[in-house]
Amino acid sequence: MTKEDLLQTQQRIQKLVHRTPVMSSQQINGIAGAEIYFKCENFQRMGAFKMRGAINAILNLSKEDQQKGVVTHSSGNFAQAVSLSAKTIGVPAYIVMPSTAPEVKKAAVKGYGGEITICPPTLEDRQGNADRIRDEKGATFLHPSNDKDVILGNATAAMELLEEQPDLDYILTPVGGGGLVAGTALAAYFFGKNCKTIGGEPFEADDAFRSLQSGEIESNETANTVADGLRTNLGNINFPIIQKYVDRIIRVEEVEIIAAMRLIWERMKIIIEPSCAVPFAALLREKDNFKNKKIGIIISGGNVDLGKLPF
Amino acid sequence: MTKEDLLQTQQRIQKLVHRTPVMSSQQINGIAGAEIYFKCENFQRMGAFKMRGAINAILNLSKEDQQKGVVTHSSGNFAQAVSLSAKTIGVPAYIVMPSTAPEVKKAAVKGYGGEITICPPTLEDRQGNADRIRDEKGATFLHPSNDKDVILGNATAAMELLEEQPDLDYILTPVGGGGLVAGTALAAYFFGKNCKTIGGEPFEADDAFRSLQSGEIESNETANTVADGLRTNLGNINFPIIQKYVDRIIRVEEVEIIAAMRLIWERMKIIIEPSCAVPFAALLREKDNFKNKKIGIIISGGNVDLGKLPF
Repeated sequence: MTKEDLLQTQQRIQKLVHRTPVMSSQQINGIAGAEIYFKCENFQRMGAFKMRGAINAILNLSKEDQQKGVVTHSSGNFAQAVSLSAKTIGVPAYIVMPSTAPEVKKAAVKGYGGEITICPPTLEDRQGNADRIRDEKGATFLHPSNDKDVILGNATAAMELLEEQPDLDYILTPVGGGGLVAGTALAAYFFGKNCKTIGGEPFEADDAFRSLQSGEIESNETANTVADGLRTNLGNINFPIIQKYVDRIIRVEEVEIIAAMRLIWERMKIIIEPSCAVPFAALLREKDNFKNKKIGIIISGGNVDLGKLPF
Repeated sequence: MTKEDLLQTQQRIQKLVHRTPVMSSQQINGIAGAEIYFKCENFQRMGAFKMRGAINAILNLSKEDQQKGVVTHSSGNFAQAVSLSAKTIGVPAYIVMPSTAPEVKKAAVKGYGGEITICPPTLEDRQGNADRIRDEKGATFLHPSNDKDVILGNATAAMELLEEQPDLDYILTPVGGGGLVAGTALAAYFFGKNCKTIGGEPFEADDAFRSLQSGEIESNETANTVADGLRTNLGNINFPIIQKYVDRIIRVEEVEIIAAMRLIWERMKIIIEPSCAVPFAALLREKDNFKNKKIGIIISGGNVDLGKLPF
């Protein structure tokens, strides 16, 4: 993926996504001992950066393929992102959701116009149903993180951030399926001035950390973390990008994630998902390494179940 | 208070306060059936609009009086606003706090450099201690809402909002001690184009509603509301302004306040105090009266105890 690819992607999607604000807080900077710029994708359409990748992937389909629609399986933000993107462009969206998905998420997908298929909550059932719909409808399957166009779309958040703060020393993102950190690393490489990309990951779901060590895609045996967006594994498209462009991954404890999340809620008055708190927790954990540096953090989303807060 | 007073106030304080963002949400607009612009004073320094009035009041003191310091009694946002304003200008701040004030609030005041005196939690003890400090130190007593300079400072939030959205039909604010709604009404009168100011008040603390009916300052017998910032009464300085410039006051039920607060948290991803949800709840309660109108809402603050959420 080239610099030109990123620029074309930004051009393609920019009228259909929000240019989210970059926020900072003197109090947070004081606590961290660094100058931090938060790119607030919690204020993105449908509440997460996933909108960028989803809409880019759909825009890149041929007219003919667009008419046949898109299909994905997801219980989370990507389901909403695909539904809203498809609705925005005028394309059918078929969303396979596990029967265990919260009613509020199903309602959100329905609200955005997605056609839901409920299936048993196993990966086989989810993929099987998505494959069946793909075959029946001729719809295109969209993967939430292991997809070139999704990665390019995700990159535009860091591109915007670097337009406002061109001389960042680091950009930190959470690492789940790898689509955000890969896109961010491409943006930092092509548009930063020696800007390094660092991923944050829970110890409880440190597949990406281990993958970088072993040189192969590792999976999580368990994923007992409050950062529920980070339980997924890397894929064969984003992993080589991560190997090449991501500086390193910092792992954090659950208590650190919850404390970092609470700090951002209390001091910045913004609602962020636990997953977004992971890179900030990583910075606080290794404070000395970031002292007086200029740091961007991608706040990936703000879709939280207010009835189930960890504090 | 004249248009010139407001302009001078804005000039005086604008470098010492944040120009807070104005946010809107298509989802919220869809639910409300109106075009709403939220002036986000939850992102103000110390987390609330009170910063504007406090810093204006201190800036308006003579150099001599500034050196002697300022004193107030408060368990909430005004204590933090006076402490941070005084610190910003380099003036001593004496804060009388009831022994029942939460530790986190005491810590915030201390963090901003305020000198705390703890007293028994009665209004007599609070005022008595403040009077004693005023006499001992020669400090100037600052009232959180019934003070001309505080009202003028508060007005600048609506002035900024009207600079960005000049043709608002209405501006809604919560009504507690009356300082915010009075300042807002002045701004709407002098800088709006036939822009009406409406206050939101809980049925459980509807002193201002009753005051406007009776023509005298009424008090709350009880104030059993989740909107803990709105339990106070109007004062002799702000009441005549409210009588003259505020269109009317809409009262709301507790369940309406909590639902409105949750809606803003969930859809807009910002943290607001229960008190700030009151004007939005008022709009939803009288939806038909605001249909397709352009409405500003002052989000007054975001200092919430995350351990004690009403949902």
